[in-house]
Amino acid sequence: MYIAMNRFKISLGSEAAFEKVWHDRDSHLWDVPGFKNFHLIKGETFEDYTLYASHSTWESKESFNIWTKSEAFRQAHKGAGENRDMYLGHPVFEGFEVVL
Amino acid sequence: MYIAMNRFKISLGSEAAFEKVWHDRDSHLWDVPGFKNFHLIKGETFEDYTLYASHSTWESKESFNIWTKSEAFRQAHKGAGENRDMYLGHPVFEGFEVVL
Repeated sequence: MYIAMNRFKISLGSEAAFEKVWHDRDSHLWDVPGFKNFHLIKGETFEDYTLYASHSTWESKESFNIWTKSEAFRQAHKGAGENRDMYLGHPVFEGFEVVL
Repeated sequence: MYIAMNRFKISLGSEAAFEKVWHDRDSHLWDVPGFKNFHLIKGETFEDYTLYASHSTWESKESFNIWTKSEAFRQAHKGAGENRDMYLGHPVFEGFEVVL
């Protein structure tokens, strides 16, 4: 099993708008082979941002990698450059193999 | 729902020993109210460490907080000071509310 997370620093006051983007998004994920589930998760609020992460679980790292090269991935990310003022810096990707 | 993660930087070459500590650990978690599941997850290997995280899912932040004050928590962490040479620095806790 594999967990893919993308960490986002969201400027203070933009939290609700950021959550709405994800709420309204058509992720094109549910039919993707190897996809298990998706969550948007909200971490701590710091002096100048709130930490969020996208959190998706996959049967394997390979199934995730295949998705990132697919048309479904391009569709899911086609609006990713919008709403830039919400973000402090670029999202940071972290992938994890489930050991136990 | 709530996800509690503790991030560990493990010195190169100590990965198998670190995984064995978690494998052999009696977590005392399965009977804890609100506990849903636990994973040990392995991230990227950098120049001087490999990133790992403990990843537990809870019905709520409150159920997690109650556990951290319990005897079960103390039992699960009683050996936490051992094997210090595996670690680069202290673990870093991050808690996340599941938004979507």
